[in-house]
Amino acid sequence: MNYAMIFYLIGNLFKVEAGLLLLPLLVAAIYGESATYPAFALTILLLLLLGVLLTLRQPKDRLLRPREGFFIVGLSWVLLSAFGALPFVFSGEIPSFVDAFFETVSGFTTTGASILTDVEAMSQGMLFWRSFTHWVGGMGVLVFVLAILPRSEAKTLYVMKAEVPGPTCDKLVAKVRNTALILYGIYLVMTLILILLLLLGGMPLLDSLLHAFGTAGTGGFGIKSNSVEFYNSPYFEGVIGVFMILFGTNFNLYYYLLLGNFAKVFKSEELRWYLGIIAAAVGMITINILPLYGYNPLRSFRYAFFQVSSIITTTGFTSADYGSWPVFSQAILIMIMFFGAMAGSTGGGIKISRVAILCKNALRSLRSMVFPRSVRTLRFEGKPLEHSALDGVHCFLTAYIILFLGSLLVLSVDQFDHVSNLTAVAACFNNIGPALGICGPVGSYAPFSDLSKLVLSFDMLAGRLEIFPLLMLFMPSVYRRR
Amino acid sequence: MNYAMIFYLIGNLFKVEAGLLLLPLLVAAIYGESATYPAFALTILLLLLLGVLLTLRQPKDRLLRPREGFFIVGLSWVLLSAFGALPFVFSGEIPSFVDAFFETVSGFTTTGASILTDVEAMSQGMLFWRSFTHWVGGMGVLVFVLAILPRSEAKTLYVMKAEVPGPTCDKLVAKVRNTALILYGIYLVMTLILILLLLLGGMPLLDSLLHAFGTAGTGGFGIKSNSVEFYNSPYFEGVIGVFMILFGTNFNLYYYLLLGNFAKVFKSEELRWYLGIIAAAVGMITINILPLYGYNPLRSFRYAFFQVSSIITTTGFTSADYGSWPVFSQAILIMIMFFGAMAGSTGGGIKISRVAILCKNALRSLRSMVFPRSVRTLRFEGKPLEHSALDGVHCFLTAYIILFLGSLLVLSVDQFDHVSNLTAVAACFNNIGPALGICGPVGSYAPFSDLSKLVLSFDMLAGRLEIFPLLMLFMPSVYRRR
Repeated sequence: MNYAMIFYLIGNLFKVEAGLLLLPLLVAAIYGESATYPAFALTILLLLLLGVLLTLRQPKDRLLRPREGFFIVGLSWVLLSAFGALPFVFSGEIPSFVDAFFETVSGFTTTGASILTDVEAMSQGMLFWRSFTHWVGGMGVLVFVLAILPRSEAKTLYVMKAEVPGPTCDKLVAKVRNTALILYGIYLVMTLILILLLLLGGMPLLDSLLHAFGTAGTGGFGIKSNSVEFYNSPYFEGVIGVFMILFGTNFNLYYYLLLGNFAKVFKSEELRWYLGIIAAAVGMITINILPLYGYNPLRSFRYAFFQVSSIITTTGFTSADYGSWPVFSQAILIMIMFFGAMAGSTGGGIKISRVAILCKNALRSLRSMVFPRSVRTLRFEGKPLEHSALDGVHCFLTAYIILFLGSLLVLSVDQFDHVSNLTAVAACFNNIGPALGICGPVGSYAPFSDLSKLVLSFDMLAGRLEIFPLLMLFMPSVYRRR
Repeated sequence: MNYAMIFYLIGNLFKVEAGLLLLPLLVAAIYGESATYPAFALTILLLLLLGVLLTLRQPKDRLLRPREGFFIVGLSWVLLSAFGALPFVFSGEIPSFVDAFFETVSGFTTTGASILTDVEAMSQGMLFWRSFTHWVGGMGVLVFVLAILPRSEAKTLYVMKAEVPGPTCDKLVAKVRNTALILYGIYLVMTLILILLLLLGGMPLLDSLLHAFGTAGTGGFGIKSNSVEFYNSPYFEGVIGVFMILFGTNFNLYYYLLLGNFAKVFKSEELRWYLGIIAAAVGMITINILPLYGYNPLRSFRYAFFQVSSIITTTGFTSADYGSWPVFSQAILIMIMFFGAMAGSTGGGIKISRVAILCKNALRSLRSMVFPRSVRTLRFEGKPLEHSALDGVHCFLTAYIILFLGSLLVLSVDQFDHVSNLTAVAACFNNIGPALGICGPVGSYAPFSDLSKLVLSFDMLAGRLEIFPLLMLFMPSVYRRR
């Protein structure tokens, strides 16, 4: 392992996090929340000190091999969350470190699961930091650090592979660094448009910012105890609903749009699956919840569309208490929890491309069982799928199931009901946030034990980083070999 | 498709089923249940008539290709169940055909899920037929038919592959037919030993027979409303508990034992996983339920062992209401529901060998991600695993998940709770029987709608036949091509 390079990158990451923390400090200053100044200032100083110490020596060998790419991504996200939790602890707004860590992991991983029972009691600065982590985590921060560091071009690819979600990773342009910068640019512009639209609808500035962060990162931290339902506005629900779907779309497609390459977008197989599943889910739920909303199809559609958009993109905003919807609608929501958004988006879950690849491969295997002499190759997005990519998808599925069951077992020690446990793990692993039962739209993750909260934090990180970078932290062979 | 051969085989199958129905008729005669004579007699006559008609013409072409092997297995199990349901309907003991079909499918697939709310009200003849279907279905009936038919040697392999559970299918001896006859012999002898042991413990003859059928087929139809708990006997629970594990073991291992090839048994990787999982589950549950049984470790062990043995082998007998056990113990039971028993046994579920292959392959993929230059082949049971076998396991897992989710969606229309729906599908798909919630150890499947019962019947058949033969019945291309 190239520890010199790893420490150097972590040091730079700390400096960036210190810089990011200036924003909530500014918000706190604007609102005159002087009680929170020391919490932010202390964390910033600590990060700067560590950052400077770790970057004193430039590493001679800047090579990052695949396992180092995975390893550093896993490690940096854990550290980012641990230090990001400190303002909550120092200010006393979330006194327990485990709770604060859970909340910060939930932020950076764009999950939106919360241990807060009264979110409206938080200071504005802390609320800003909490939602801002969604925006930072949405596109990933390590690729950003590498993109702005000098002389790191050749090393960025493996980090990008590890940090950007999806079974495969496309370079849009020849240089990985430029690819990253293009994607960050699109992300920033789309977020600004969303903020503008919310402001135009009359949402206060801070509320607009925080909802835009939660939407762009597909995070879903609400700043009202009843989330987006608070505003009771079809306009806000419509804007946020549509933008969640947009941020759950592979960002490469926006780049192609900018280039005028509409054919590439139109032919995207994953996009068709994504929109098809959304349409089917919205349609079925709209019909199923009609009786609840006085047989008014428009109102039913409004709530069904927002909730499906929120859950398939793994955002987790709520505009209605779907815990009181019929079991059939809930079953659909639970199902699309697992599907997740498109690869290369800010969304979580198993990813539509993996779901599509799994389905197509099962059908192919079935066909070759019936007609053994007809050899077929699996094609996805118009190209034959490499065997290693397919193997990766299967390996992902197995690892996903194993970690899921293991987590479920630990949670079940807490003696809450099966539905709460099952949906809590699903909501954390898929980076959604609210679940059903005790951690439903009107509940919180507070009642779980510290052990369960740590396991759920692990699940959130594993979900965001697609398992392998995090597993690697626990493999002794990674540390042993040189 | 070689329809002539397919009809011919189905005809022979009908004749065999007519013969099997003579046994419950005999039991009915012994108990003087004259009211049920016409129901059995009519079904037997119908089967004989159809059987004779379909076998009038010997097919010239006896070739069975792989898809015909799958197809005929799928079709024959559906027909076997449909006709096997008739005595229940004709006698009026289960008036609804859908209910009777569900019960018979549950029997042949060795599931043991029941729509009966008062099993003790049934006549002895019907109870015998109900449990006897477990014994018939345990080893599969089509391979038996082929084994006793003349001149069918070359055609048996694909049927055996389709009907015998597991990711791979070993021929023990050169001839498939002899392999089949050896396995049926072992099955018969083990069943007789079990009957003898139950009789020695003082269980009445009919009870011994029916419990032996349920245990040997890993079916689990109880003949008392509280299953094996009725006898409240550590001896019976011990004998049945151990024999469930024995019948959940790959029968090939018994053949090796008979040959004195102990090394082969001792080195069986699947056997080690199987016993390891059982030991771990029993250990954890024993400790977890200690407070419920007055901190008496022996009593805890007794109930934990029986329940784990019953569920991992997918039998479904109960000796305690595990619905009142702690959530942790229930979570373990739900988990091993999916694992199932060993390949090549009478048990259902995903099968231990598939679980082991999936885990080992995930680890291998993970390692090759960390160290891309070290090429590893996946080994199972001491041999490199063929790529097609691995592909088959992955395809099985995907198809399993898709069918599982689809079934869950249909069931959720009935508006029962998530736990009932989820565990009902799990209990049927894995051929276990009792679930949690409304269809728990003290409940039944009666409340579900007819549509849900048909979907669950499909799941039971799909579980027993490992999905593909049943899916094939719904593929238009199977019928189209010649």
